[in-house]
Amino acid sequence: MYYIGIDIGGMSIKGAVVTEKGEILKKSSTATLPDRHYSEIISDIAKLAYSLISELGLSVNEVSGVGIGIPGTIDGENGFIVYSNNINFEHVPIVAEFKKHINLPVKIGNDANCAALGEVKFGSGKGVREAVFVTLGTGVGSGIVTDGKLLVGKGGAGAEAGHSVIRTGGERCTCGRKGCWEAYASASALIRQTARAIERDPSGMMAKLSREEGKISGRTAFKAARAGDAAGKRVVASYIKFVGEGLVNLANIFRPEMLIIGGGISNEGDYLIERLQKFVDKFSYGGRRNPNVTVKKAELLNDAGVLGAAALVME
Amino acid sequence: MYYIGIDIGGMSIKGAVVTEKGEILKKSSTATLPDRHYSEIISDIAKLAYSLISELGLSVNEVSGVGIGIPGTIDGENGFIVYSNNINFEHVPIVAEFKKHINLPVKIGNDANCAALGEVKFGSGKGVREAVFVTLGTGVGSGIVTDGKLLVGKGGAGAEAGHSVIRTGGERCTCGRKGCWEAYASASALIRQTARAIERDPSGMMAKLSREEGKISGRTAFKAARAGDAAGKRVVASYIKFVGEGLVNLANIFRPEMLIIGGGISNEGDYLIERLQKFVDKFSYGGRRNPNVTVKKAELLNDAGVLGAAALVME
Repeated sequence: MYYIGIDIGGMSIKGAVVTEKGEILKKSSTATLPDRHYSEIISDIAKLAYSLISELGLSVNEVSGVGIGIPGTIDGENGFIVYSNNINFEHVPIVAEFKKHINLPVKIGNDANCAALGEVKFGSGKGVREAVFVTLGTGVGSGIVTDGKLLVGKGGAGAEAGHSVIRTGGERCTCGRKGCWEAYASASALIRQTARAIERDPSGMMAKLSREEGKISGRTAFKAARAGDAAGKRVVASYIKFVGEGLVNLANIFRPEMLIIGGGISNEGDYLIERLQKFVDKFSYGGRRNPNVTVKKAELLNDAGVLGAAALVME
Repeated sequence: MYYIGIDIGGMSIKGAVVTEKGEILKKSSTATLPDRHYSEIISDIAKLAYSLISELGLSVNEVSGVGIGIPGTIDGENGFIVYSNNINFEHVPIVAEFKKHINLPVKIGNDANCAALGEVKFGSGKGVREAVFVTLGTGVGSGIVTDGKLLVGKGGAGAEAGHSVIRTGGERCTCGRKGCWEAYASASALIRQTARAIERDPSGMMAKLSREEGKISGRTAFKAARAGDAAGKRVVASYIKFVGEGLVNLANIFRPEMLIIGGGISNEGDYLIERLQKFVDKFSYGGRRNPNVTVKKAELLNDAGVLGAAALVME
């Protein structure tokens, strides 16, 4: 049998036909145009699904179900989008609306949670039953898999590990609290930390790199550090510590087999992952007496979303 | 059918015969004498179980199984105590050893996890499928129930929420990290916070109360605050904030239906619980758009351990 995975983003909606082994047979996308009424957007998603099926020469009967990943708070149990900031959705009965177009089982989930499920079923975490997936991007997203299933919490509002305070009273977070992990470990936070270091040393290597690039990015400090710049190394070491603190918290709470790192910052690869692994090994509760927790880079990149969405309907 | 719950502590070992509704038909205890070889201690546990059964006039065939709660890292899957600080157990095959005495299904778990399961099955969280149980005692313990089952993590080493950093670089914790929740929210931490306030104001109400009691306790600041003392109120407000920060972190990660508060500090009752509820409502992610998380005092007190241990074998 085949499964359809849909990943709704602010700009585009991706769709794919997937086997139960996680092979993508065909994928395609369509523009989100998020200012429209939800019924139009959902109608477009149905068209995308139909075109994928027909281009593969399949009939609807050969498809077991459709999974849809959506940014925001998703009430999967009742088939509602509670709230999605990116696409102005609030209390949208997406499953019922979608079934007007295609009569197949439909499941929905938060997009970061879907990406987590995708990575655990088919990517870095293949074969693992307990893992936490963390994306270091504009924010810090998280998806939690326990016993092979997504932990979503009441009304789908859980798995917001980015909004755990790691420094009470610290940097203001977008969520209203002070000192959230996201305010220290996101790419935006790293850019802020880099900007402060540049202010302190306007003639240093990071200042030079940022002028060349035309902006300070999440890569600036890492580039400088790799080139041996002492100030760059300090920014990276401090950033690694902030990311590490949150990872160790998750290691202690879940003691998963694996912590999977995605998002833009994960492109720093081994340089990042090895340092995070060292931090996690050093500070996790119980030290060597307890099972170690492996830190790994996410593998599936942009396909994690559609694969994880498809995996929602594989159970 | 009947179930036996055993709760091993540093001083005494409690046992109870329990129905599947959580009624305790009979309970008893025996001294732990923790310096003995584990085979002697386990033999005593078996004797305790036999005497409970026979005093009720039951036969072993009428008992479905024995659940045992043990402090430390417990590998329930393989039936081993990995490590228990309180009773000098390390890599003890407790299930195999116990079965030499009684031929019944045996399950083991960490004592805090068992207490959590007890509270969720038969206490404050009755009927709830998702809850986090937090004990504010000498340390900060936690037990996590998702989908009605305990989350124990790889090798039983998870559910250590007390060892989440809430102030990176902060107070030294017993676990080696700096700034753990436990170092701010345990009764020991509150005593430290109270002692500092007394040092600043040696003629104040808290100083007076501690002289009367002969020591500074976890109750000193609460007593002063209830009596209207400004310095006492400040200590309590700051302590509530520290406890609250960790609770909100757990609310955001799990979005459980309930956060259950146990341990010595929970005896402060509504005064404590109402303030924690306010904090959780105010700072949980998504505010009123997301489902609220109820903060509740633990109900079962000393029976939570044996009831939860018995619940281990009820599935």
